Amino acid sequence: MLQTIRIEEKILGKNEELALRNRQRFDSSGIFAITLSGSPGGGKTSLLECAIPKLQLFLRVGVVEGDIETDQDGRRIAALGCPVTQIVTAGTCHLDAGMVGRALNEMPMDDLDLLFIENVGNLVCPASYSLGEHALVVVISTTEGEDKPLKYPAMFRKADAMVLNKLDLSPYVNVDPAAVEAYARRVRPGLPSFRTSCITWLGIEEWVAWILELRHAWMLEKKHP
Amino acid sequence: MLQTIRIEEKILGKNEELALRNRQRFDSSGIFAITLSGSPGGGKTSLLECAIPKLQLFLRVGVVEGDIETDQDGRRIAALGCPVTQIVTAGTCHLDAGMVGRALNEMPMDDLDLLFIENVGNLVCPASYSLGEHALVVVISTTEGEDKPLKYPAMFRKADAMVLNKLDLSPYVNVDPAAVEAYARRVRPGLPSFRTSCITWLGIEEWVAWILELRHAWMLEKKHP
Repeated sequence: MLQTIRIEEKILGKNEELALRNRQRFDSSGIFAITLSGSPGGGKTSLLECAIPKLQLFLRVGVVEGDIETDQDGRRIAALGCPVTQIVTAGTCHLDAGMVGRALNEMPMDDLDLLFIENVGNLVCPASYSLGEHALVVVISTTEGEDKPLKYPAMFRKADAMVLNKLDLSPYVNVDPAAVEAYARRVRPGLPSFRTSCITWLGIEEWVAWILELRHAWMLEKKHP
Repeated sequence: MLQTIRIEEKILGKNEELALRNRQRFDSSGIFAITLSGSPGGGKTSLLECAIPKLQLFLRVGVVEGDIETDQDGRRIAALGCPVTQIVTAGTCHLDAGMVGRALNEMPMDDLDLLFIENVGNLVCPASYSLGEHALVVVISTTEGEDKPLKYPAMFRKADAMVLNKLDLSPYVNVDPAAVEAYARRVRPGLPSFRTSCITWLGIEEWVAWILELRHAWMLEKKHP
């Protein structure tokens, strides 16, 4: 009783040049850039609220916030005392490299060491648009179920790490964190992953340490390419 | 420290003709069609698993399932003993009316009274593509936070009802269901809404009753236009 129809893949393109331009701007300003992508309500902004004060002990941190409507997230991040540019996409379902480039014009590029780009809440479309970031972190929450890496593989395939958030809720949902991780690694073998909670602060230190290490490795690589 | 950039709205188009064709096929077959849209992991398939056996007491129910990859949801629904066509979009972030039209070719249109179309998990893009359905239900879960109607208004503006799912988890997340409903009605005044849980079965009967009433009203309207 189950029929299956496959729709042919569409070819996406030409965002890459602007992404490369963003990357060059990051590199020439000594900014390590990390994009966070994931479903609506997965906790991307909350994770930044947890991590940024710890990162600010070592680094000057800025944020580009993407939202379809409202600057609520931008205001939450600005309260941490770091420069924020809020992109309101007015309906568009993802950030693209051109939007981020315009946002960078508003940022104090010479006074930053680390930039987070928080994408629109969408586990699908943002996977197709590189923004020029050095690392992509996919944020997923335990409440979304175990099977999301298999059902939305593009984002996981492209990601440099997975943050599995809302671990505090895993006792109440029938979700085994190890199963989510196993599915993610089936899609992307070796994917580093972090189990976090913005309520209990589980895993925040580990994620922050990973960010600092990643940036450190990038700095060394720049000096001794 | 907070800058805001607004991206101009893009014009979407030309899906409407195919949607109208789907609508005509539904009408001529006496099928009432309902689309479910919402974030990944909000519980769309689980809601169908709860509601369909109740609806099957009165109506012949079919389902068109949309997913980017895998036919997991299709298999879950087929287990209920109703005809299912699974659309695998292979990366595309929404169903469009053309895909649904092809799926309808695989469905026993003369033997159905009610058709559910479960869209790809995405609170953004599906809002821009009418599929020809008679009613659109937006599914959101308590774990996504209170502010989603404000941040993703297009879907709520277009919806005929909201299902606020995972009410069983609301004690564990800092989310007031009334706040979500108030935000949704700020975007879409008068929006009918249902508080549901697929664990406790809260609200399933009410949602099913609403579906039956809506279909009944449509049948009367068809007879006495």
